[in-house]
Amino acid sequence: MRNIRITVSYDGTSYSGFQTQPHGNTVQDYLERAIRMLSGETVKITSSGRTDAGVHARAQVINFTTASQIPAERWCLALNSRLPKDIVALRADEVPLSFHARKSAKRKTYSYTIRTARIPDTFQRRYQFHHPNPLDVDAMRDALAAILGTHDFSSFCSVKTVAESRIRTIYDAWIVEETDQMSVEPNQPGQLRFYFTGSGFLYNMVRILVGTLIQIGEGKRPAEEMAAILRGRNRALAGPTAEAHGLMLWNVEYAE
Amino acid sequence: MRNIRITVSYDGTSYSGFQTQPHGNTVQDYLERAIRMLSGETVKITSSGRTDAGVHARAQVINFTTASQIPAERWCLALNSRLPKDIVALRADEVPLSFHARKSAKRKTYSYTIRTARIPDTFQRRYQFHHPNPLDVDAMRDALAAILGTHDFSSFCSVKTVAESRIRTIYDAWIVEETDQMSVEPNQPGQLRFYFTGSGFLYNMVRILVGTLIQIGEGKRPAEEMAAILRGRNRALAGPTAEAHGLMLWNVEYAE
Repeated sequence: MRNIRITVSYDGTSYSGFQTQPHGNTVQDYLERAIRMLSGETVKITSSGRTDAGVHARAQVINFTTASQIPAERWCLALNSRLPKDIVALRADEVPLSFHARKSAKRKTYSYTIRTARIPDTFQRRYQFHHPNPLDVDAMRDALAAILGTHDFSSFCSVKTVAESRIRTIYDAWIVEETDQMSVEPNQPGQLRFYFTGSGFLYNMVRILVGTLIQIGEGKRPAEEMAAILRGRNRALAGPTAEAHGLMLWNVEYAE
Repeated sequence: MRNIRITVSYDGTSYSGFQTQPHGNTVQDYLERAIRMLSGETVKITSSGRTDAGVHARAQVINFTTASQIPAERWCLALNSRLPKDIVALRADEVPLSFHARKSAKRKTYSYTIRTARIPDTFQRRYQFHHPNPLDVDAMRDALAAILGTHDFSSFCSVKTVAESRIRTIYDAWIVEETDQMSVEPNQPGQLRFYFTGSGFLYNMVRILVGTLIQIGEGKRPAEEMAAILRGRNRALAGPTAEAHGLMLWNVEYAE
């Protein structure tokens, strides 16, 4: 048997999330179907972690074992011709049998995109949360500093979280201010992109962090509250869960 | 009566082009419907020019006359709440009654985007023509130089063109090489963006120019042929019409 790792990108708009569900229509279902069409095998793929309905991935990582002799470099084009256009295999590698897309992952990065211009950008509408009012980026950056390091993130996960430990490490978190591609006048502010790199993320963690940061950016809460929310270990202390469609699994890193 | 000018952006994927057709489903139909819902008037809008089925606009310009007293700055948000999400009013201005979106236009710019990376970018799939092989950008730049200035563009327009004169002026034409946002390795080449600024464009003109440039970029024709094709004034001399979905009406300029 061989272990194949595939980096996959998807537009989550039309799917009920990554992971197989009773009612179907998941990214996992389409990937397993394409693999079956290609190799004739019924495989169960492992991912670096699920993503919710409407959440996108620039570079999700999956793996599966196969008896197929198809060379690694042939998998991408062969799968892409059997996948819907909103799911794309970016690269394939043969990896040691010990590799596990979730357990071997060292760091994950998510991005969250907010459009702050008054008018939406129709070309990015599926990938940006539209918040048509300016946000105080300095205050949000101050708040982000409080979550760096290793903490119990109970305040920033869904009450439905089943993980035994809520301790996670955030290695880095930053905000990029991007100009508005839709503005006829050059160099107008238009969108904010948040990035979070961590050891792993709890259920809804990035979306609750962003929902809380938006309240800070709006001036509804001071930046200093972020540390107190974290210490409180209580979901009710944090802000709302930001909408799914602004979220994107950006990258998953493994030890070489 | 007042004359209202509106800059409109649209994702043309789902529409049968800009201009009203017997079978409906055009951008114009939705704009006129939204104006009717808002002002109660049945108006016929004028645009800077039609765009074909599947072609996008970052900043199309329309105008119409109205008896409505709605202030110009209120039109955008009011129309956007009555438009599908893939059509967006970006800005509205009250202009002199003499303003005509097509006849008053001085310069138009179109962009055409080609993804040259091997794997498609699913997030841009509606807005990029995928050509998964490298193109010789220097050769295409040499060829672009030949079309600058005032020429008879009969070789670069559809045989269905009804315009009396095929003489147009290209003020500027350039290519921007963009890095691949989907690549996990930084600074990989990924897409080319062509821009064409001219006095006006004939039917299919940008798409035939791009189809010809692709052949030059592939090495199928030498860059020097561009000038000969132009001189020949014969559509059969040029390359194929590039696919609609890579094309975007970028900007329309008027005298101030």
